[in-house]
Amino acid sequence: MPAKRSAPLRHAIYAQSGGVTAVINASAAGVIEAARKAKTRIGKVYAGRNGIVGVLEEDLIDTSRIAAADIARLKQTPSGAFGSCRFKLKDLEQDRVRYQRLLEVFRAHDVGYFFYNGGGDSADTCLKVAQLAQQSGYALQAIHIPKTIDNDLPLTDTCPGFGSVAKYIAVSVREASFDVASMAATSTKVWVLEVMGRHAGWIAAAAALASDRAHPLPLVILFPEVVFDAAAFIAEVKQKIKTFGYCSVVVSEGVKDAQGKFLADQGSVDAFGHAQLGGAAPVVAGLIKNEVGCKVHWAVADYLQRAARHIASKTDVEQAYAVGRAAVQFALAGANAVMPTIERLAHAPYRWTVGQAPLQQVANHERKMPAHFINAEGFGITPAARRYLAPLIQGEAYPPYAQGLPDYVFIRGQAVRKRLAQFSAR
Amino acid sequence: MPAKRSAPLRHAIYAQSGGVTAVINASAAGVIEAARKAKTRIGKVYAGRNGIVGVLEEDLIDTSRIAAADIARLKQTPSGAFGSCRFKLKDLEQDRVRYQRLLEVFRAHDVGYFFYNGGGDSADTCLKVAQLAQQSGYALQAIHIPKTIDNDLPLTDTCPGFGSVAKYIAVSVREASFDVASMAATSTKVWVLEVMGRHAGWIAAAAALASDRAHPLPLVILFPEVVFDAAAFIAEVKQKIKTFGYCSVVVSEGVKDAQGKFLADQGSVDAFGHAQLGGAAPVVAGLIKNEVGCKVHWAVADYLQRAARHIASKTDVEQAYAVGRAAVQFALAGANAVMPTIERLAHAPYRWTVGQAPLQQVANHERKMPAHFINAEGFGITPAARRYLAPLIQGEAYPPYAQGLPDYVFIRGQAVRKRLAQFSAR
Repeated sequence: MPAKRSAPLRHAIYAQSGGVTAVINASAAGVIEAARKAKTRIGKVYAGRNGIVGVLEEDLIDTSRIAAADIARLKQTPSGAFGSCRFKLKDLEQDRVRYQRLLEVFRAHDVGYFFYNGGGDSADTCLKVAQLAQQSGYALQAIHIPKTIDNDLPLTDTCPGFGSVAKYIAVSVREASFDVASMAATSTKVWVLEVMGRHAGWIAAAAALASDRAHPLPLVILFPEVVFDAAAFIAEVKQKIKTFGYCSVVVSEGVKDAQGKFLADQGSVDAFGHAQLGGAAPVVAGLIKNEVGCKVHWAVADYLQRAARHIASKTDVEQAYAVGRAAVQFALAGANAVMPTIERLAHAPYRWTVGQAPLQQVANHERKMPAHFINAEGFGITPAARRYLAPLIQGEAYPPYAQGLPDYVFIRGQAVRKRLAQFSAR
Repeated sequence: MPAKRSAPLRHAIYAQSGGVTAVINASAAGVIEAARKAKTRIGKVYAGRNGIVGVLEEDLIDTSRIAAADIARLKQTPSGAFGSCRFKLKDLEQDRVRYQRLLEVFRAHDVGYFFYNGGGDSADTCLKVAQLAQQSGYALQAIHIPKTIDNDLPLTDTCPGFGSVAKYIAVSVREASFDVASMAATSTKVWVLEVMGRHAGWIAAAAALASDRAHPLPLVILFPEVVFDAAAFIAEVKQKIKTFGYCSVVVSEGVKDAQGKFLADQGSVDAFGHAQLGGAAPVVAGLIKNEVGCKVHWAVADYLQRAARHIASKTDVEQAYAVGRAAVQFALAGANAVMPTIERLAHAPYRWTVGQAPLQQVANHERKMPAHFINAEGFGITPAARRYLAPLIQGEAYPPYAQGLPDYVFIRGQAVRKRLAQFSAR
């Protein structure tokens, strides 16, 4: 009698979306390791090369060919190991050809699980894919995995990726403030750091953690939520210099003046006759130099802040891994069109667990920083903000080093054989 | 019979000078701990508050009042714990009043040892102090302790402070390059990082370490030693993008064009009508955006790079401590007007020892980066440069953390009672 034949296992597609982080690969590891554990129920995990673009173009990486040790190393490697993309699908009606193509690719490779790892836009795409599959009678479970340094997804206490940026900024501001303090008597009195955050001041707010009772530092923070008032700002800087002898300024890239114009976009032109690529820090530094008359230094953290796996928050790494693993567990439990969330159980000592939110309530809802997180003067945070932020930067999770440098894993990725006609996503 | 009275112990003055580093406090710890060990021969160590300015103004910190545990923590704390200064004494003839004042302060506090921790300018000052003391018949041993991220002191294989900047830059370039690689398919293709180095490309050269056999990265480095050739540069960037899909550019703040003008100083004016505070990175980024037509991101590391004790080179920390300790040992052995040096015994495995150089040969001699460290194309380093640089970033020396942040020591510093009339150094 022949052995009973079980149905062939259906496969999974995993894709990364949007700006990458220091820990998005930990989510990838969470997905892949959990799927491997469930090998009697999930087939292979295919990763879209360069995110959804790779899925559309049927450019898939067969993660089953990657050694377990290398998957484990993803937990310690920043960036998007399979490539990410900035590529937003529009509404179902407007972008029907692409959505249909996704289903074709799923069908061609017998994909039963779609794990999409990104921010608000990709939550929306993930929901639409789930809806289309349902309308088309194609059996698919679509799970969104949260990732964004912007910390702006709703229904989750925090977004994996944010905690590590917060830690990098807090550590850097503490270190550079110590530096300025040393120099202030005869040289630089103000140091300006520009941080990411076009719409919300979460990252800027994290800079405030640099200062605490044992390390009191004079910080002036410029949030995108607060209209830039040059006079009030200069008065605040002068006050800090008067009290401490120096001052550190943290400016969000998204700060705007009363006319709604970005500080970073002041329309200056360089000697080549090109419009200068913006930067809020040099503008703020120039203003201080002219109005206060002291020596000013400025830095722009840019990708340094979101790539800095070497100083990642252990809490963040663990949460990134946990939401990846939970996505697979939710799928195995039959869930569809949901997102794992981080639920805070207690502030101090910090305790958290993984929850679940329906994508319908996630997509197109942006979480703003609460107004009561910014103090009355508008240049710092409140105790409530500190209570919220402090746990997110807890713990160090150092990567392994070789030759003095972090030994990050380089995934070359073996392609899955194509089965469909060519399709250009772009 | 009364006990035999020995002569009262003579005291020491220690001062930090110039731009601070991630490890200059390790040299301070080396001096103070070695002096405490030699307590039968050296009295107290007084630290000049804000460097030589504090010595001139008789504003001294009594380090004997600082707990041993806090002195030990200096090894893990960036910046200048006692304050530094940018304040150059001129020639003996031109600045006789200030030099004489130094001797008066030494006399008033029975100072027999002067440890001056800085770069080329302070080596020169230290030598002049030694000469003046000798001419005046005042018994003093003046020892210079090397410190400079510029790595430009002669007769020493490297300068404490440089190795940690080199490590920070190499780590950061590796991390951000991974990030750009993830984004390049649909978004940013070039990332530009501006690093310190107004006269020499040592720091820029260290960026090349980010790329190795296991992590091959497309880097284009702009050295101050190489006249900026926009056409050749753009061709190189295009070539890297063609081969790798993306590219990271590291530009020294000191890069100049064929007219001898700094890239950072392009005379642009912001909307407030102020001269924009320079930055080479935005200029280079603007050029690439216009000539290559791709999305470009840029960062300016500024103080982040020299304050980053969290990712300091263990080798550098050990060398900084060793030269501080050696300064005291040299003094005890009777030396005067010398500087401890780092002597390289072997490249790999790296072995080093502390040597001694006469200040006469150190002062006013700047060490440039050897021409053969830059490759023929002018955008990268040679194997000889790699052989030299690689050992300097070896090893991690993490500081202790509390609440997710490095727990750096904050030295408040108890002042020594003044004995002289007021003097304004500035």
